[in-house]
Amino acid sequence: MTTTPQKPPHNAASPKEAGDIGVATGPIPGSRRIYAECPARGFRVPFREIQLHPSAGEPNLAVYDASGPYTDPAAVIDIAAGLPRPREEWVRARGDVEDYDGRLVKPEDNGHVSAERLVAPFPLHRRPLRARNGAVTQMAYARAGIVTPEMEYVAIRENGLRERVRDIIRDGEDFGASIPDVVTPEFVRDEVARGRAVIPANINHGELEPMAIGRNFLVKINANIGNSAVTSSVADEVDKMVWAIRWGADTVMDLSTGRNIHNIRDWIVRNSPVPIGTVPIYQALEKVGGVAEDLSWEVFRDTLVEQAEQGVDYFTIHAGVRLPFVPLTANRVTGIVSRGGSIMAKWCLAHHRESFLYERFAEICEIMRAYDVTFSLGDGLRPGSIADANDAAQFAELETLGELTQIAWANDCQVMIEGPGHVPMHKIKANMDKQLAACGEAPFYTLGPLTTDIAPGYDHITSAIGAAMIGWFGTAMLCYVTPKEHLGLPNRDDVKTGVITYKIAAHAADLAKGHPLARAWDDALSRARFEFRWQDQFNLALDPDTAMAFHDETLPKEAHKVAHFCSMCGPKFCSMKISQDIRDAARAAERENGMDAMSEAFRAGGGALYRPAPAAE
Amino acid sequence: MTTTPQKPPHNAASPKEAGDIGVATGPIPGSRRIYAECPARGFRVPFREIQLHPSAGEPNLAVYDASGPYTDPAAVIDIAAGLPRPREEWVRARGDVEDYDGRLVKPEDNGHVSAERLVAPFPLHRRPLRARNGAVTQMAYARAGIVTPEMEYVAIRENGLRERVRDIIRDGEDFGASIPDVVTPEFVRDEVARGRAVIPANINHGELEPMAIGRNFLVKINANIGNSAVTSSVADEVDKMVWAIRWGADTVMDLSTGRNIHNIRDWIVRNSPVPIGTVPIYQALEKVGGVAEDLSWEVFRDTLVEQAEQGVDYFTIHAGVRLPFVPLTANRVTGIVSRGGSIMAKWCLAHHRESFLYERFAEICEIMRAYDVTFSLGDGLRPGSIADANDAAQFAELETLGELTQIAWANDCQVMIEGPGHVPMHKIKANMDKQLAACGEAPFYTLGPLTTDIAPGYDHITSAIGAAMIGWFGTAMLCYVTPKEHLGLPNRDDVKTGVITYKIAAHAADLAKGHPLARAWDDALSRARFEFRWQDQFNLALDPDTAMAFHDETLPKEAHKVAHFCSMCGPKFCSMKISQDIRDAARAAERENGMDAMSEAFRAGGGALYRPAPAAE
Repeated sequence: MTTTPQKPPHNAASPKEAGDIGVATGPIPGSRRIYAECPARGFRVPFREIQLHPSAGEPNLAVYDASGPYTDPAAVIDIAAGLPRPREEWVRARGDVEDYDGRLVKPEDNGHVSAERLVAPFPLHRRPLRARNGAVTQMAYARAGIVTPEMEYVAIRENGLRERVRDIIRDGEDFGASIPDVVTPEFVRDEVARGRAVIPANINHGELEPMAIGRNFLVKINANIGNSAVTSSVADEVDKMVWAIRWGADTVMDLSTGRNIHNIRDWIVRNSPVPIGTVPIYQALEKVGGVAEDLSWEVFRDTLVEQAEQGVDYFTIHAGVRLPFVPLTANRVTGIVSRGGSIMAKWCLAHHRESFLYERFAEICEIMRAYDVTFSLGDGLRPGSIADANDAAQFAELETLGELTQIAWANDCQVMIEGPGHVPMHKIKANMDKQLAACGEAPFYTLGPLTTDIAPGYDHITSAIGAAMIGWFGTAMLCYVTPKEHLGLPNRDDVKTGVITYKIAAHAADLAKGHPLARAWDDALSRARFEFRWQDQFNLALDPDTAMAFHDETLPKEAHKVAHFCSMCGPKFCSMKISQDIRDAARAAERENGMDAMSEAFRAGGGALYRPAPAAE
Repeated sequence: MTTTPQKPPHNAASPKEAGDIGVATGPIPGSRRIYAECPARGFRVPFREIQLHPSAGEPNLAVYDASGPYTDPAAVIDIAAGLPRPREEWVRARGDVEDYDGRLVKPEDNGHVSAERLVAPFPLHRRPLRARNGAVTQMAYARAGIVTPEMEYVAIRENGLRERVRDIIRDGEDFGASIPDVVTPEFVRDEVARGRAVIPANINHGELEPMAIGRNFLVKINANIGNSAVTSSVADEVDKMVWAIRWGADTVMDLSTGRNIHNIRDWIVRNSPVPIGTVPIYQALEKVGGVAEDLSWEVFRDTLVEQAEQGVDYFTIHAGVRLPFVPLTANRVTGIVSRGGSIMAKWCLAHHRESFLYERFAEICEIMRAYDVTFSLGDGLRPGSIADANDAAQFAELETLGELTQIAWANDCQVMIEGPGHVPMHKIKANMDKQLAACGEAPFYTLGPLTTDIAPGYDHITSAIGAAMIGWFGTAMLCYVTPKEHLGLPNRDDVKTGVITYKIAAHAADLAKGHPLARAWDDALSRARFEFRWQDQFNLALDPDTAMAFHDETLPKEAHKVAHFCSMCGPKFCSMKISQDIRDAARAAERENGMDAMSEAFRAGGGALYRPAPAAE
């Protein structure tokens, strides 16, 4: 991996540098980015190919890849130019959008920062696109029976390169999901049409490599980035986005709440191959000087348009935090833990009025459908402690989100539903069941849940337990939690730890659901492990760097990478080595027949505990 | 925390030092070790008291504590003298044991190491105790209707200091367990008599602070230590034991496979307040020069006696790896992954004979019952990959372990059953159900299970998911997994990470089972969090050092510890702060009545976002 320093975004008004934006480029060790061509459409779909030693006797494994061009050494990375925008052609080819002047960027959009603190705008400015009339959403097309390029792209991605997989094994319990053996573009269309999957794909996000979120596809994960008033910068946030997708984040949310929100977001979206989500109420609050009571529909609407023009693919909107529900939180242990939820609750009580997000929901739909921004209906009243799990406030909001889902769908708007939070294990299934019933099978997108409150510093783990379980039960996307949860803003290392942890949870869920592609990965790694193909084991690991570094802490020499033991047990006690000996002797004896011969073969071969691995290439 | 350097165990034959044994002493930050007195018996039972700020308005929380005298500043720690042995009195007072000369330590016991590599023996030598006749096990006493001091000690420990808990909340799903509201000594006796719980307590382990392992008690965790031929030393291993119990390990297994096994074990047992487990076949294999085929009943028997005299509290014995089962592993992806299992499989095939552990099981019982060593019936055929989970080999062994449990119980021997391994989530419950049915409700003691194979370097997390679930379903003890699993021997940091991770899994299970003491901890921490009592939140965390360090990375000043925000969101966006504002204004308005007054109160109070915390003590 290399870090490619980039031309810094410096303030044109001042000769001072804002700092380099360096992002991680180059392949993950042992892997390379490959493509499946789609000749009919003229695009190519990325995968990550994991290299195995020829002695493995099996094809290199290909896995789903979200890392974008950054891991392709043939790609030219120029953060100031942004990624290529092949998707823009697909959008324009539909003939139902127009470009227009767009909204002017105002000082309030960047929090009225002073000139010397203003992050430079992204250098390239384009006129945004919007619908000429009607809806330009993937749902609208799907319902009209159209298989879009986005849907075809998704179908190819979700199928993996299954011709390479020796054994497609479907062994799981999926609680009534409908995961097909093979994903066809028609299947994708149908899932989107019925609202059971979303393809978050703003028409202004031309850099997007389309992906789907839905129960009947691979479980996805989201990583959160974004600055706060206390810390971080545009360089850090762009770097975090690239770092997060490198390790496997399928979408990224920019949750910035500090200065320069608009400009930072431009740099992120223009350089992101994955869908970007935001919570527009944060920026709206900044625009009114942080005074929640001064929020209004007008400020919010303006923010939606501003962000839609930039190409944000999904908005978290807390339209379920309704005035009558707020008192239901009065006796909670941790009140309202959602930033957006607490802001809206404060507004409702200050004005003694119903939430304008709820009342104006149909008008929000008008905007969403004109750009194809997907709703992520926020769980503003989610439980922030074990004590508050599954309470009346939480489920009252969920029922409302179900009601709003129907309105959104009536407008051809794509919808996913956000979920908890902090939930002890025995209450997790009920969350899935209620959401399925209330929200018409719209995709569920949970934060964990955390299964205990007692381990700040380790909440990636307390929540991985709940996330794996709720993913198994049917949740479509898992929002990561880092070790810094409850304690501070995550740094780069925390982002990686959170992503790897959530890839574990998502994959464990795919496996338990019996997803046809899941077992191939576990089996490939276990074969490598059993055959002492150490480098292959490292290459196949979710985090090859760490796997190899941990091994090398005690056995650093190259010869150790073909050793038939590691430092856990040493050469005499390695059970896998002994297993191999048993197996080899058994096969030799079988050829000669008879159990006596078997015993003899063992005694004869028993002395040799170390055999060199096949010669390296 | 301080590190107390200890007089080194140096070789009397050589002036060279073997190195200091430094162990971690002193309280965990924010906690102190306290005791509940038992006047009737004259002993005292330890707990950890977590200090809370007076403004919390609640008593300091007391939690279960396994750390031994090491966290008590009043205790004098002298590793070369070992811990005090109050339990020896209780054992002798029963009048059914005798001391005797004991077995001579032979060079083979320490792997025939040369003089300069020999670890010095533990300085104090005592004549071991054994039964005069009959069984001296906790089960024998329990079945005779006797409540031993060990049982009373356990009852006090398992009850916590519940008079301090505001709300005993029983909210869970325990799948038919029988967790009482209050644990009485009689309840403990009954659980032990019926074999549903064990109290691992060798009569020669006078330093032991007794504990129970059983479905109807708090879920326990085990940490593994021990050297291998490749690395580690006696100083490292004693330090790891003290470090592991400091962070919460309830038992420790010494899995040493290198040199000096006998002498290292002495140093560990003499300084351990928790039960120590071993796998005697490892040392037996060392005694025959590492040649599995040269193992014999005689060598094994001798090793059992050797280790029982030292005070080892439980033995893992792979008596279920039977000759006819070995071929069932032939087509597995990862064969036999248990060290002991692979050793016994090799012996069976080499001799074409049934395992001597199986055939001589009744004779093993004779030894176990004479010292009260608990059986941990080994899962030598556990699955070491997702592909092998729940296969015929695994369950054939489990059925045999059930058969052997009955034989052990007929001899009044205590028994727990070891379990998997690598198991995808959808197959975990079946493991619990089968074990309950096959093994008469003997306690289940699993390794994880790991829920996917694809993340070496993170297997503490892949397995925490499975461990939490199987603990919820009824598993009594969870054997930890560290980040080094599959890659190498864990170091001190790995031991801590593994322990904290498994405390999370165990507590999440207690919570989901509705254990009466579990919620108090989560609720205390969440209250501290909501009230911005940062120091209390850190003190209540499973790992206070890390929680505070993570917070202080971005907000290091003392003033930050009373701030009503952290760097995740900053002062304007902290949802908990906003929740507090809402709640305070609501209460103020309530006093004046009416919703208009409420709105007014919000607008009036809305500007103040930061309020100082109550003055520190």
